[in-house]
Amino acid sequence: MNERQLIEYITTLVGPMDGRLIQGIGDDCAVIAKNDHEVWLLTMDTLIESVHFDCAFHPPEKLGRKAVSVNVSDIGAMGGKPLFVLLSVGMPPGFDESWFKAFAQGLNDACREYGCLLIGGDTVASPQGLNFCLTVIGEAAVDQVVYRSGARPGDVIWVSGPLGLAAAGLELLHRGMIDREDFGPLYEKHLNPRARVELGERLGKTGLAHAMMDLSDGLATDLAHLCKRSGVGARLTSSALPGIAPLDEAARLCHADTLQWMIGGGEDYELLFTAAPESENSLRVIGEQCGLALASVGTIVHGEGVLLLRQLPDGRTEERAVTYGGFDHFRNGEGRGDGGRRAV
Amino acid sequence: MNERQLIEYITTLVGPMDGRLIQGIGDDCAVIAKNDHEVWLLTMDTLIESVHFDCAFHPPEKLGRKAVSVNVSDIGAMGGKPLFVLLSVGMPPGFDESWFKAFAQGLNDACREYGCLLIGGDTVASPQGLNFCLTVIGEAAVDQVVYRSGARPGDVIWVSGPLGLAAAGLELLHRGMIDREDFGPLYEKHLNPRARVELGERLGKTGLAHAMMDLSDGLATDLAHLCKRSGVGARLTSSALPGIAPLDEAARLCHADTLQWMIGGGEDYELLFTAAPESENSLRVIGEQCGLALASVGTIVHGEGVLLLRQLPDGRTEERAVTYGGFDHFRNGEGRGDGGRRAV
Repeated sequence: MNERQLIEYITTLVGPMDGRLIQGIGDDCAVIAKNDHEVWLLTMDTLIESVHFDCAFHPPEKLGRKAVSVNVSDIGAMGGKPLFVLLSVGMPPGFDESWFKAFAQGLNDACREYGCLLIGGDTVASPQGLNFCLTVIGEAAVDQVVYRSGARPGDVIWVSGPLGLAAAGLELLHRGMIDREDFGPLYEKHLNPRARVELGERLGKTGLAHAMMDLSDGLATDLAHLCKRSGVGARLTSSALPGIAPLDEAARLCHADTLQWMIGGGEDYELLFTAAPESENSLRVIGEQCGLALASVGTIVHGEGVLLLRQLPDGRTEERAVTYGGFDHFRNGEGRGDGGRRAV
Repeated sequence: MNERQLIEYITTLVGPMDGRLIQGIGDDCAVIAKNDHEVWLLTMDTLIESVHFDCAFHPPEKLGRKAVSVNVSDIGAMGGKPLFVLLSVGMPPGFDESWFKAFAQGLNDACREYGCLLIGGDTVASPQGLNFCLTVIGEAAVDQVVYRSGARPGDVIWVSGPLGLAAAGLELLHRGMIDREDFGPLYEKHLNPRARVELGERLGKTGLAHAMMDLSDGLATDLAHLCKRSGVGARLTSSALPGIAPLDEAARLCHADTLQWMIGGGEDYELLFTAAPESENSLRVIGEQCGLALASVGTIVHGEGVLLLRQLPDGRTEERAVTYGGFDHFRNGEGRGDGGRRAV
């Protein structure tokens, strides 16, 4: 039983929805009716030491910021505005006060920057290491909420910024390559990602995005979720995936593959969304206003699963299934078809 | 810096309240305005393996139930009704599927029994052991919410049931005394406490309770919080504290003190509330309707701190300060006054 099967098992137990529950398990946030025209959005994420962060190289102030960003990212991914934050802190005995104060400062600063407020939570002893669980409550007009399930064949697939930076940054930090100035954007993307909340809210308000989610598990996996919820398939164009220059140099040093980082790396916290082809100009204007270089990376198609189209050195075009866990499948060179799938 | 100082530190960072936030950090729940006449109540609690539960003797189905109960208890303690639950599950690699399924079943059964619905959350890897974080969302009419801050001198202090059972049960379980039928209620109170949600909601609706909270850290500590928030003091009468018969036998076997369990044991998950003396009859009727034997245990007074009045064997009455950490202070035989206080 993997993590997804565990979620699916829980889902099977849960009974019919309450009338006020618009969206339960299965999207970036749960959605509750506030009144006839507004909803609350609720999301929860946990950060566990040695799984999600390494204190050896993660400054506490940036970790505090990240704890907020990864949660408000889910609110933005539904087209909403984050309002309130609950925090559960697990600290080992004899923890470092100055570390905690810097963490709390970063967390609170990030709350202010995203326009939300810390309103409660709890503290517990956690003998085996730090852990932080946050719940964020956001709001949106009911017709402003963008679900994962709205993608339609013919839609263009967009991402809100370059991919693979966090995966590269984490790999560099793990390998102790921590002081190259040109890798700054890679380190920063792992240590202190920014949530694309303003973009998400504008996409919700304009109604331009048909389906949306944030990229936390990597493009291949996340797009597969979006497609499954929408009952469609997707084709990604390898050459259209946006990166930044230092990625290739980082990949060379780490004996890694840039493309693998971009489709399977995880923790991008960019928005993934689909929109009608005729929305391109409007989207580019909104992107610029938010300071983001939106990139169209593929197309929604009839069917199921995610295919990646790549030009081979000999000029042929290769199609590979990258549905779920794209990283491993791609690395293992598995071909298109069911062999490249992992059940979820 | 202890856990409370940590919360206080965070509180100092947080800026002025948002207009929609009625109660932030400092009560059982955060309170957000839903509209002019209704509020949402939000609470969050974490259970960490080896701190809050021991898998050696905690059946997973009961642990799942307890995870819900300790959270909805906070909703009941504000006079509200629990509606929705978010769950974050941290599981180590290679966890036992049947254990998890039993846990999830217990959790979901408890949700149904309390009338609430699991609507989302996340799953994470937790290499060092299990941890579960829950957020519960409840609702109440705005004038139905009972805060910790409403206690008035002259109020009678009430608890909703016997005290010290969970502390005794945990001690017995730790000592391997796990199969005495007469200790069943003690084991059960630790393994599977019931939240007094129905009582809490009725106390909120009737307006009889002036101040209320749930007993999670022990009567001495929790009453001290309630007094501090209300700007009052309290006098508890030792002989009025409700127990059950097996407590004394358990205390004898564990070389413990029944009274210490009752005032400092923690995890009672009974409601602690104050009310006008003339409400006694109405309260007893409501208690009976909820199947609970409410007990009046003391009086709210002018001043500050919590005093415990006890009849000594020689006939004299002893007064001791039990404000905060009542358990240790009482055990150490510290007298009344500042020496018996712990800063929070």
